[in-house]
Amino acid sequence: MSQADIAMIGLAVMGQNLVMNMADHGFTVVAYNRTTKVVDDFVDGPAKGMSILPAHSLEEMVSLLKRPRRVMLLVKAGQPVDDFIERLIPLLEPGDGVNSGDVIIDGGNSNYEDTIRRTKYLESKGLLFIGSGVSGGEEGARHGPSLMPGGSKAAWPAIKPIFQAVAAKVADGTPCCDWVGGTGAGHFVKMVHNGIEYGDMQIIAEAYQLMKEGLGLTNDEMAEVFTKWNEGPLDSYLIEITRDILAYKDEKGEATVDYILDSAGQKGTGKWTVSSALDQGTPLTLVGEAVFARFLSALVDERAAAAKVLCGANGRVTGDREAFLADLEKAVYAAKIVSYAQGYMLMRAAAGVYGWDLNLGGIALMWRGGCIIRSVFLGKIKDAFDADPNLPNLLLNPYFQQAMAEGDAAWRRVVSTAVQIGVPVPTLSSSLAFYDGYRRERLPANLTQAQRDYFGAHTYERVDTPRGQFFHTNWTGQGGDVTSRAYQA
Amino acid sequence: MSQADIAMIGLAVMGQNLVMNMADHGFTVVAYNRTTKVVDDFVDGPAKGMSILPAHSLEEMVSLLKRPRRVMLLVKAGQPVDDFIERLIPLLEPGDGVNSGDVIIDGGNSNYEDTIRRTKYLESKGLLFIGSGVSGGEEGARHGPSLMPGGSKAAWPAIKPIFQAVAAKVADGTPCCDWVGGTGAGHFVKMVHNGIEYGDMQIIAEAYQLMKEGLGLTNDEMAEVFTKWNEGPLDSYLIEITRDILAYKDEKGEATVDYILDSAGQKGTGKWTVSSALDQGTPLTLVGEAVFARFLSALVDERAAAAKVLCGANGRVTGDREAFLADLEKAVYAAKIVSYAQGYMLMRAAAGVYGWDLNLGGIALMWRGGCIIRSVFLGKIKDAFDADPNLPNLLLNPYFQQAMAEGDAAWRRVVSTAVQIGVPVPTLSSSLAFYDGYRRERLPANLTQAQRDYFGAHTYERVDTPRGQFFHTNWTGQGGDVTSRAYQA
Repeated sequence: MSQADIAMIGLAVMGQNLVMNMADHGFTVVAYNRTTKVVDDFVDGPAKGMSILPAHSLEEMVSLLKRPRRVMLLVKAGQPVDDFIERLIPLLEPGDGVNSGDVIIDGGNSNYEDTIRRTKYLESKGLLFIGSGVSGGEEGARHGPSLMPGGSKAAWPAIKPIFQAVAAKVADGTPCCDWVGGTGAGHFVKMVHNGIEYGDMQIIAEAYQLMKEGLGLTNDEMAEVFTKWNEGPLDSYLIEITRDILAYKDEKGEATVDYILDSAGQKGTGKWTVSSALDQGTPLTLVGEAVFARFLSALVDERAAAAKVLCGANGRVTGDREAFLADLEKAVYAAKIVSYAQGYMLMRAAAGVYGWDLNLGGIALMWRGGCIIRSVFLGKIKDAFDADPNLPNLLLNPYFQQAMAEGDAAWRRVVSTAVQIGVPVPTLSSSLAFYDGYRRERLPANLTQAQRDYFGAHTYERVDTPRGQFFHTNWTGQGGDVTSRAYQA
Repeated sequence: MSQADIAMIGLAVMGQNLVMNMADHGFTVVAYNRTTKVVDDFVDGPAKGMSILPAHSLEEMVSLLKRPRRVMLLVKAGQPVDDFIERLIPLLEPGDGVNSGDVIIDGGNSNYEDTIRRTKYLESKGLLFIGSGVSGGEEGARHGPSLMPGGSKAAWPAIKPIFQAVAAKVADGTPCCDWVGGTGAGHFVKMVHNGIEYGDMQIIAEAYQLMKEGLGLTNDEMAEVFTKWNEGPLDSYLIEITRDILAYKDEKGEATVDYILDSAGQKGTGKWTVSSALDQGTPLTLVGEAVFARFLSALVDERAAAAKVLCGANGRVTGDREAFLADLEKAVYAAKIVSYAQGYMLMRAAAGVYGWDLNLGGIALMWRGGCIIRSVFLGKIKDAFDADPNLPNLLLNPYFQQAMAEGDAAWRRVVSTAVQIGVPVPTLSSSLAFYDGYRRERLPANLTQAQRDYFGAHTYERVDTPRGQFFHTNWTGQGGDVTSRAYQA
């Protein structure tokens, strides 16, 4: 009876959909859920007639699996994952030198640091562990998600046929799933994906507010703009759904989007991405602003009170509307390029710290279909890494260099206009500041270092001596002595 | 022989200077250092003739102290603090119901979460623990630092006379030291102070770059501008030292600042502040950009390479130079107000989470003298909280409202100009975006929520129904079912 290819623990919508997706591709799946009624309702309901076997206990579930057993978890991130791992360990078999050990796959939104810990723990027991990002929401899970597996590389051959079969495919049939890298890499890359998603959404939100308040466009007019943008370099899922949302009318014929409270929620992965950027020393400014913009949006009452008393510019875009819209499209594209360049900087930095051999082009491919940030643009990123696998920064790729040069003046006009009329554009302006800093041989940090040396004798390096030599100036004739600076005890 | 008032562990420059400061104020101090030669060199050198007693062991140090014993640590943050605490515990006496327990004070740059842990641990042993921010660098330690103590409140009477005596005094003689709040509050407030310091420094750096590159001013001309600014609302220590730095010439008559490498270092507290803002859900955008600007500055070689190939605006300020400088002063002030407003938002949020009864006006007073961010401006913040101790946000205080209104047009001209000429102004523009978002009743987060509902059925609230009611729209006619969204297992 051990005929099943894989088991799924956790039958919320994502789990159910991924199970049915696997069954569609010829795999036999064991479905298990802590509340067993969910299992019965699933196999007698949506899964009826499919090669999906119910299990009412973990023991039963494991007994139905071929070896090496593949058990996937789609449960709430955190303690539930650890709890299931503890319950599975005695039921699974470690590798014996001939056969590899059984495999546990965590497809939830786990923190990559937890995944690193769990991989090491399970490998110490002879089992294999994969932490896989799963993106694409419910629809993606059902018909083709983006899958980002990383962890015990020995487990990859065992899950590759299933994962690549169920994953989204891009036009040429390439699956949006490949091996991401070692311990924790899958969830790290998924986390960065989510951070970038926050950024993309905030860029779009700023464009929306500029069109709505700066140009006074109606929802239908904006839907038309997004329709047009979706035919150019911005062609992407998020632009597409923005078009749909702006065009959507309720049963009374009113635009639903106008009635939605402007308080953005979040589930924490954007925040994790920025925290991780702080840890890695990577200037992930655009995603940072996007996360902070959600925090600010949540202060609904405080903003309403502030709006009554705080003065400031409150204007409209003057001049040609079509010209402004053309500029705006370029500004959105330029900001987006910066955001992905920053995201890749973060992945590269983390790869160095954690020793991952990340396939940076492959990651673009995994994101190109199936997931929330899927876009034509990601194909350009894939091309950039195909052309130069060691590309130090996306902005240095000729295509992107060119795109930035072409969009530069338009981007500046948009940010400048927004600043003048008082419409907040935190990501459009932050990414521009980054771009202007990144393309600058000399930043004003020489002054910062002088200040640090002045008040704290922190020393500085010089431009006319080799790196690694540190100097201190007694700026006032009274400062401290550098050699005695370090705390000693 | 138990005549000493307080002991100091850790005789680096900060420790030595603080000990001498205490002695200057009539206290007898026991000086101890792990490397005992440092103790002898100190008491026979700079401390000669002062009421400073050497100790060559912790036992000897403790034996020289009056009760309750007060032992201050100024050692490297992290494990060394825990190590000394463990060694001190058996030497100190817990409270006995009549007398309070002995007191350990950590004056290092400890993470407030460590301080929370240590306070609880020591209180469980009947001892008292204070985590105190100490700011002002070496000069401050010697002649009047800003001190921010928090922790075991029962210890405050025992350390108050010493701390308030040695602290900096503002014009009317008020010490820059008062009780900050409960467990961890002292180091938290010090951390926010440091984050704000990063912000202030970056704002100044941007003004410097605009003057230097946008206006083409010489160092001497810029020193003059900062001299003038130091006589107005920007009057502060950092403006003052910037003036000194720009005016400083080396023995060859060259401006040292021009030879300093533009790679800013950091010791981590700015990063902690931003991480903490992420945890508290506070939009601390300006400090965030300042920390990221340091990261970007550190990419010296990558920037040099990028400078060769990335195109973009590269202009000069046109128009009247004095008018631009007047605008710039207002822009710097407006950005600074936003930064402090954000810092106070963070402290208020943390106070809610950790149950601290923070004296927000008192904190402004503690920062007003002695520390790196000391300024006339902090007096205005003190005034704001004196006028309304429950002021929900600094920006809503009438003085600051007015200052923002007066600076608004100038601030926008400066940011807009910087954007047009290609000079990066990440904090000047980020704070402006925040201001425009904060004073806005309606942000575009309604679209963000619609998107989240579209791809993840995350639901949304409506503007025409009470808060706490959540809706889902089946945007495409194919979406998921909200009620089954949460992962279940």
